Amino acid sequence: MSHQARNPSFAEEIKQSFAKQTIMELIGAELSRVEPGIIEISLPYRADLAQQHGYLHAGILTTIADSACGYAAYSLMPPNSEVLSVEFKVNLLRPAKGQTFVARAEVVKSGKTLTVVRADVFGVDEDGRRELVATMLGTMICLS
Amino acid sequence: MSHQARNPSFAEEIKQSFAKQTIMELIGAELSRVEPGIIEISLPYRADLAQQHGYLHAGILTTIADSACGYAAYSLMPPNSEVLSVEFKVNLLRPAKGQTFVARAEVVKSGKTLTVVRADVFGVDEDGRRELVATMLGTMICLS
Amino acid sequence: MSHQARNPSFAEEIKQSFAKQTIMELIGAELSRVEPGIIEISLPYRADLAQQHGYLHAGILTTIADSACGYAAYSLMPPNSEVLSVEFKVNLLRPAKGQTFVARAEVVKSGKTLTVVRADVFGVDEDGRRELVATMLGTMICLS
Amino acid sequence: MSHQARNPSFAEEIKQSFAKQTIMELIGAELSRVEPGIIEISLPYRADLAQQHGYLHAGILTTIADSACGYAAYSLMPPNSEVLSVEFKVNLLRPAKGQTFVARAEVVKSGKTLTVVRADVFGVDEDGRRELVATMLGTMICLS
Repeated sequence: MSHQARNPSFAEEIKQSFAKQTIMELIGAELSRVEPGIIEISLPYRADLAQQHGYLHAGILTTIADSACGYAAYSLMPPNSEVLSVEFKVNLLRPAKGQTFVARAEVVKSGKTLTVVRADVFGVDEDGRRELVATMLGTMICLS
Repeated sequence: MSHQARNPSFAEEIKQSFAKQTIMELIGAELSRVEPGIIEISLPYRADLAQQHGYLHAGILTTIADSACGYAAYSLMPPNSEVLSVEFKVNLLRPAKGQTFVARAEVVKSGKTLTVVRADVFGVDEDGRRELVATMLGTMICLS
Repeated sequence: MSHQARNPSFAEEIKQSFAKQTIMELIGAELSRVEPGIIEISLPYRADLAQQHGYLHAGILTTIADSACGYAAYSLMPPNSEVLSVEFKVNLLRPAKGQTFVARAEVVKSGKTLTVVRADVFGVDEDGRRELVATMLGTMICLS
Repeated sequence: MSHQARNPSFAEEIKQSFAKQTIMELIGAELSRVEPGIIEISLPYRADLAQQHGYLHAGILTTIADSACGYAAYSLMPPNSEVLSVEFKVNLLRPAKGQTFVARAEVVKSGKTLTVVRADVFGVDEDGRRELVATMLGTMICLS
């Protein structure tokens, strides 16, 4: 897929918006890739982000996947837009093990009002090996 | 709906498991109701749990809704079970405003392997008025 | 929940629209309840609507649940609206056995652009006993 | 992705099972591709499969996507398995226009009990041009 940005300052605006998402600082997530239609957010594992078995909690996976989807949608919207999540579905494929997690979102279909986005979340081990741990399919809305 | 527990110590086990979910301490969530088939988790709003507009991040709503669904499923499982989330879908209905948030999960269908659970997440204001901000429909699996 | 219609002729318009859904005639489905925010569609079982074990195919359950959701959303929209499905998720709870199937949709949250709707699909046996076989959570959009 | 079949007669069994899905004959759908982890089902447009605007009904799109997902999951299961749909979510991306529709399912993650599958549904016009009209993300269960 090839994506075309319509807002020349989308990357700068996404970085500014991400910086306002206080939850990202709390959990230690970073915006690691910003391109038209594609966003990645990275999150080092921390023991205080876990569920009962010590794996990353599904809700924290969802936190980075949802923001990645929202910004991927935003990156293709016209200037002066605002993006909100309408809904998402997450399939949890494996225990969320990893030294770092990367949520990679890519727009499936960008529309005037609604944008459909897919995100894959990978667990990355010490040797840089990636394993898909979850996948999201969601809908974002453009407010303007 | 009426739900029947098969594990006499389900409530104690859920409390112990919840205490091991380190993410709950980080965000300040508490288990506020534990009954067969019904679980509530409460979360006071904090400014460091927000998305770019200052509302609770959808992923944090999801964090409490997912754990509530998991424990609701667990509450109806036989002794010596383990529960994992298979998938969930969340519809975000309104901006997540509130002084406190309550995720209320209830089992829709409890099966030998899979349990389907629904959760509503409410924002509660200073005067105790509840407004539905999100709803989840998810699938949990019993490992034993 | 109490729902308020804003289009005085919603019921008539839903009946006319349903009559144009040629798939409903092919499978033998009927509109069996039309109220503000609540729609039911009924479908007698037929051997030519089945999956490999003779149960009603999940896609046919979805067909009646999706239309019930769409019309439930429409029933609360202003005059001169048009409704389309944005997305839906279906959990299949039991084998779809029954002499008749009833999809009952009810609006969860009606908005200016988007409406979230839930539908339960019941299998009804010869003695009128209902069993929940599937549940849908979906999003509908208002075009005008 | 590369997929490995464990049941040497999976293709034959899928064809036999598909032939038992009576709904496929009613709507005119055909199994057009059977490979390990990948299944396609094709459906020529017919005026009696439509919603109120004459487009293919979302439930019929879902019917072919769901069966494609189920058989894609089945193709990677061990001999003597049985497959059932647990849940699926469908995003409807564009009006379902086309002379023919093709649902292409591919396994995302194959597990002992659960398999996660994605399906894209394309509308194909007179000149063979494909447009993505819907995408499904679903969970299938292996019974044995």
